Amino acid sequence: MDRIIDITELALRDAHQSLIATRLGIDDMAGACAELDEAGYWSLECWGGATYDACIRYLNEDPWERLRTFKRLLPKTPLQMLLRGQNLLGYRHYQDEVVERFCQKSAENGIDIFRIFDALNDLRNIESSVRAVKKIGKHAQGTISYTVSPIHTTELFVDQARRLQDMGIDSLCIKDMAALIKPQAAYDLVKGIKAACGPELRLHLHVHATTGVTLVSLMKAVEAGVDCVDTAISSMSLGPGHNPTESFMEMLEGTGFTTRVDLERVLRVKSHFMKMLGRYSEFLSQVTGVDTEIFKSQIPGGMLSNMESQLKQQGAGDRMKEVLEEIPLVRRDTGYVPLVTPSSQIVGTQAVLNVLMGRYKVLTGEFADLMLGYYGAVPGEKNPEVVKMAYEHARKEPITCRPAELLKPEWEKLRAEALTLTGCNGTDEDVLTYAMFPQVAPKFFATRHEGVRNLGKDPDTGESETQPAEGHQGVITGPITYSVTLSGRQHKVTVAPYQ
Amino acid sequence: MDRIIDITELALRDAHQSLIATRLGIDDMAGACAELDEAGYWSLECWGGATYDACIRYLNEDPWERLRTFKRLLPKTPLQMLLRGQNLLGYRHYQDEVVERFCQKSAENGIDIFRIFDALNDLRNIESSVRAVKKIGKHAQGTISYTVSPIHTTELFVDQARRLQDMGIDSLCIKDMAALIKPQAAYDLVKGIKAACGPELRLHLHVHATTGVTLVSLMKAVEAGVDCVDTAISSMSLGPGHNPTESFMEMLEGTGFTTRVDLERVLRVKSHFMKMLGRYSEFLSQVTGVDTEIFKSQIPGGMLSNMESQLKQQGAGDRMKEVLEEIPLVRRDTGYVPLVTPSSQIVGTQAVLNVLMGRYKVLTGEFADLMLGYYGAVPGEKNPEVVKMAYEHARKEPITCRPAELLKPEWEKLRAEALTLTGCNGTDEDVLTYAMFPQVAPKFFATRHEGVRNLGKDPDTGESETQPAEGHQGVITGPITYSVTLSGRQHKVTVAPYQ
Repeated sequence: MDRIIDITELALRDAHQSLIATRLGIDDMAGACAELDEAGYWSLECWGGATYDACIRYLNEDPWERLRTFKRLLPKTPLQMLLRGQNLLGYRHYQDEVVERFCQKSAENGIDIFRIFDALNDLRNIESSVRAVKKIGKHAQGTISYTVSPIHTTELFVDQARRLQDMGIDSLCIKDMAALIKPQAAYDLVKGIKAACGPELRLHLHVHATTGVTLVSLMKAVEAGVDCVDTAISSMSLGPGHNPTESFMEMLEGTGFTTRVDLERVLRVKSHFMKMLGRYSEFLSQVTGVDTEIFKSQIPGGMLSNMESQLKQQGAGDRMKEVLEEIPLVRRDTGYVPLVTPSSQIVGTQAVLNVLMGRYKVLTGEFADLMLGYYGAVPGEKNPEVVKMAYEHARKEPITCRPAELLKPEWEKLRAEALTLTGCNGTDEDVLTYAMFPQVAPKFFATRHEGVRNLGKDPDTGESETQPAEGHQGVITGPITYSVTLSGRQHKVTVAPYQ
Repeated sequence: MDRIIDITELALRDAHQSLIATRLGIDDMAGACAELDEAGYWSLECWGGATYDACIRYLNEDPWERLRTFKRLLPKTPLQMLLRGQNLLGYRHYQDEVVERFCQKSAENGIDIFRIFDALNDLRNIESSVRAVKKIGKHAQGTISYTVSPIHTTELFVDQARRLQDMGIDSLCIKDMAALIKPQAAYDLVKGIKAACGPELRLHLHVHATTGVTLVSLMKAVEAGVDCVDTAISSMSLGPGHNPTESFMEMLEGTGFTTRVDLERVLRVKSHFMKMLGRYSEFLSQVTGVDTEIFKSQIPGGMLSNMESQLKQQGAGDRMKEVLEEIPLVRRDTGYVPLVTPSSQIVGTQAVLNVLMGRYKVLTGEFADLMLGYYGAVPGEKNPEVVKMAYEHARKEPITCRPAELLKPEWEKLRAEALTLTGCNGTDEDVLTYAMFPQVAPKFFATRHEGVRNLGKDPDTGESETQPAEGHQGVITGPITYSVTLSGRQHKVTVAPYQ
């Protein structure tokens, strides 16, 4: 009897977040839901992460309505979300009551499985969410944000796993968002956690594909006893995204492992998204192929392009190499934080400033907060001299408590503020939207009645990006077809006058 | 002590053959040679396969001169070529004297390692080449063309390996051009061959990446004892090409295996080819990402697109599904030939005819030849009824001998014919060019003095494909810049009048 390996399909959340900047419209997902729901996945990740923000910021779509739609279209398979612990889906820490209400509303509207992580791996930042999820009888998945550093040994991660187990999680996830986990490391970590926590603690592995090695890491994790892996349908996979679901399934043949997933249905899902993805070409990630230099710099692809544009804006596009050498030093000074949102941005921006202005001559407020404990405890020892500079910069005392302890009850205030906004419907869901995105929510509430915006474009006729530009001296009155060669392809391109 | 796994780098031959239709010019390779030569590869595949044909057909380049250039620029690392056994680099069987002279001249001009294969795995078709290579003291690598069918068991391939060993080969290669070898199959096959042939028979594994699983297969082959794997620099990898060299190297960390290759040099080679590849965008394969449906159809990607265009030409573009179902039946009737050049084209075209005209109502000459033994012995039992139809069609007796046995000495005749051609320089090398490509050689000899053509184009200004097309009613007098979204990207495109 083959051992069953479960699969969480990422097509509805992380795949399009990684590949097309979270822009996939609900209309373009709905058509695949029947097949997805019947395919035999352990869960479907479909909410949380950046999808909430993208819904209200770009799609004029109520994220709660999206969740209810998924629940209606996917009645059979458990729905999963990614939750940033005490930050929920926003960018600051929330007081515990807000966290509890958010989890409760997410469950009521359709979430079954909550994957809860903290960028610093400060477990105190995920405690409240775990407690809230357990209280409402849903599945709380604790998470280890995987990273590589001199202090991040297998033992350290295994210890973290044990502490998460003590917290009462229903399952554990190793989350490797930068594709850093190599095959042997994956094997050792899965073995170590299973040995320490017992076979009964369900273990999941989430990896991206960016470095090209992580399908092998999934194989090794399977051999070491992992229970479930995250993959994405092949037409929405690879590059900065994830390993292809079909390749994972085919790879297992004859190994003594198998899945419950129906390949024929999966191939129909593939065709569906292959068509859909073509509609979002303007948002498609420029990262393709593989990049193993991440192993050296430990910098995720998205962070690299951010820093490049920061440098260019400062007229210092030629100093990238210095910044790449500075980042590991800054990261060491922070006590080796994992480089994920928001720590990746904080460390990256400080490294750019160090190169441009002199080391720690200028500190960002966020970097000072990180050094002073306002994001939580870091994995290693911070450089005390840099902590001192942070104190001098921010004039705030360093803290060691759980950051949310310092917050006063805020729900009633948030509620009162939300209710004053035009278009707010008075529900707790709307209050949560306001709480997490106070800048974006007012505009969204005001325009919500206009309905969802789908940003997809017909790949053959979608010409809204085409504008006559400088140098054009003729008058174009009809469509013109060119054969144009660019970025590695010859294309027939039809250009029509801009309306 | 980690066990050393050797690497053959494919950048100079199969990588660009798979990704940009073999068009990479020698100028665009020369700049990477110093780094490649010092990087520590076991060998550099740089000649043979389709490169000879592409040189004289498209690049006005003498393939022998290319080989001498490589030998000059790569003095340290053994140079490797791919040889189609008795077909050499052409498309028919050659008499043994021609085979011997070809091998001799290849060695004289720079080849150290000859990888010799036959599409049907009829070992009699590679015997003469192996003998010729041994005679001149070079390295003869025997090859198994990997395929999947009801009769292609591990035992069958192991038996083939043993027979190749008896032939006196210096090493053995498992060649999986359609990316069909799954991890467990790779493990079992490598184990089986090592057990049967002894650890002293050097074993190489050549895989393509198309199905997305074969980096895992390389890992399993390494665990099973493979000595050398084929990879391609990451900037010329994946899709219908091969697994990235850097990912393979990084993957081994901590596993007890390592390579002799210098990663820093490899990364500089990567940068070089990343720039070069952008110059060949018009030739870039349309196949990207992964395709696991090859496992079902067993049809390599290139063959699929060929058949699609055949069907469309016949106004039967909607009958692809029937053809995909017909192919396995035709292949069964042939005795399960591996589907590689030329058998893939022969089987594919016959399947198209069967669907369009009725099963075996019309036979191609090549299909009849295949059924009657003129390509050699097939792996399994042929369908006797189809053999009978082939005989009735072709009016040729079935043969069971080695096809080249039927050939009369032909060298002097080929030489005499070649010498009559304008521009033929009278060398044996030129005679071989004429022998293998009698249609193309005359034109090449006549234009050789004009020098090598480089088909690369500056990706920013290369506008030779840009032509004003139907519907254009204005007059464009200067460059126009558009923002154009197509095939998954937003691009700034500058279009200038066609000169």
